[in-house]
Amino acid sequence: MLTLYTAWGTIGLACEIALEEAGAAYEAKRLSFADNAQRAPDFLAVNPKSRVPALVTDRGVITEAPAILAYVARAFPKAHLAPEGDAFALAQLESFAAYLCSWVHPAAAHRHRGYRWADDPAAIADMRRKAPLNFAEALDLIDRELFLGPWVLGDAYSYGDPYLYTVATWISRDGLDMADYPNIADHCARMEARPAVIAVRERVQAARVAAG
Amino acid sequence: MLTLYTAWGTIGLACEIALEEAGAAYEAKRLSFADNAQRAPDFLAVNPKSRVPALVTDRGVITEAPAILAYVARAFPKAHLAPEGDAFALAQLESFAAYLCSWVHPAAAHRHRGYRWADDPAAIADMRRKAPLNFAEALDLIDRELFLGPWVLGDAYSYGDPYLYTVATWISRDGLDMADYPNIADHCARMEARPAVIAVRERVQAARVAAG
Repeated sequence: MLTLYTAWGTIGLACEIALEEAGAAYEAKRLSFADNAQRAPDFLAVNPKSRVPALVTDRGVITEAPAILAYVARAFPKAHLAPEGDAFALAQLESFAAYLCSWVHPAAAHRHRGYRWADDPAAIADMRRKAPLNFAEALDLIDRELFLGPWVLGDAYSYGDPYLYTVATWISRDGLDMADYPNIADHCARMEARPAVIAVRERVQAARVAAG
Repeated sequence: MLTLYTAWGTIGLACEIALEEAGAAYEAKRLSFADNAQRAPDFLAVNPKSRVPALVTDRGVITEAPAILAYVARAFPKAHLAPEGDAFALAQLESFAAYLCSWVHPAAAHRHRGYRWADDPAAIADMRRKAPLNFAEALDLIDRELFLGPWVLGDAYSYGDPYLYTVATWISRDGLDMADYPNIADHCARMEARPAVIAVRERVQAARVAAG
């Protein structure tokens, strides 16, 4: 039994979809950021970095979305969530994941979490203004060049797909227009037709309603 | 024959050390950031993200340090740069790499490249002030908790080691004191005694002298 620590609106959604696609036996523990649950001692014992997602396995905890996604792919090989055995194709998937985690995700995060990198309210406001421009530029590069279609890597679905899908759920939240990214928009619709994505979205929504 | 595009002072150093450890046949092409070589059309054709490192293989280009490092490990299995075949141990390595690329590296980059995330000079100055605090906090977590020793993963050397070593070369540059991180300091000394690291450092230094 795996336990995924996640929270609403975070990249944890990508990991939850991957677990669902893999047919894994898992439980999702949903932290309330409004209650600062990510800073509570019991969660810091799971992840001293105070971030979600974190995946608890019988051998220990795995943190960081790219590592959790790659682990799920390896632990459930029948789901074919990564092109295992093809060193180059796997590197293209890892490259896509690294671009999302090292540039796109932090670029977007400067809109809501500028306090991580500055203290002056004027500085945080300037980051907030610029963040959607960086996010838009990255989405444009993904839409035009990196995304091969119909899935991220081309014909084969992989863990890059829930990862992109989750980042794409931030587009309208950040005041950008999905219509500017036609390939990402198509991908989004394709994702939301998958049984695993439907199941996870329903569960996330139900938990959100229950939490009030 | 592999070609690594890299530049002085960047995370490309980690990839160059990994290639050297692997015994790979490779050529290092060193871009001059002072000349804006990363924005020249011939390099944008290699990497439209305008960043180093980029590894040119006979099947195409691989970008992003974690993907290049993982690729080198898989392409040269005899060098044992990753715990292949152990899904959990590999995830711990991927988690370490993802932490460096998604948090530690951008945290440090706010000191020198704040213009990426803001335009207001006062905002950039505030990021510059705060960046070493974030970098120090991350180094402290690595030193106390994430680093197992004598290598990143414990007894087995992996691509996490040149990755950490490269990030550690920024400690004094950013005005921090290596003595505050005794495990990272020991690791640094251990790294600089390895023939592959000695060879790469000599080559990097010679290229720097030749460039003037």
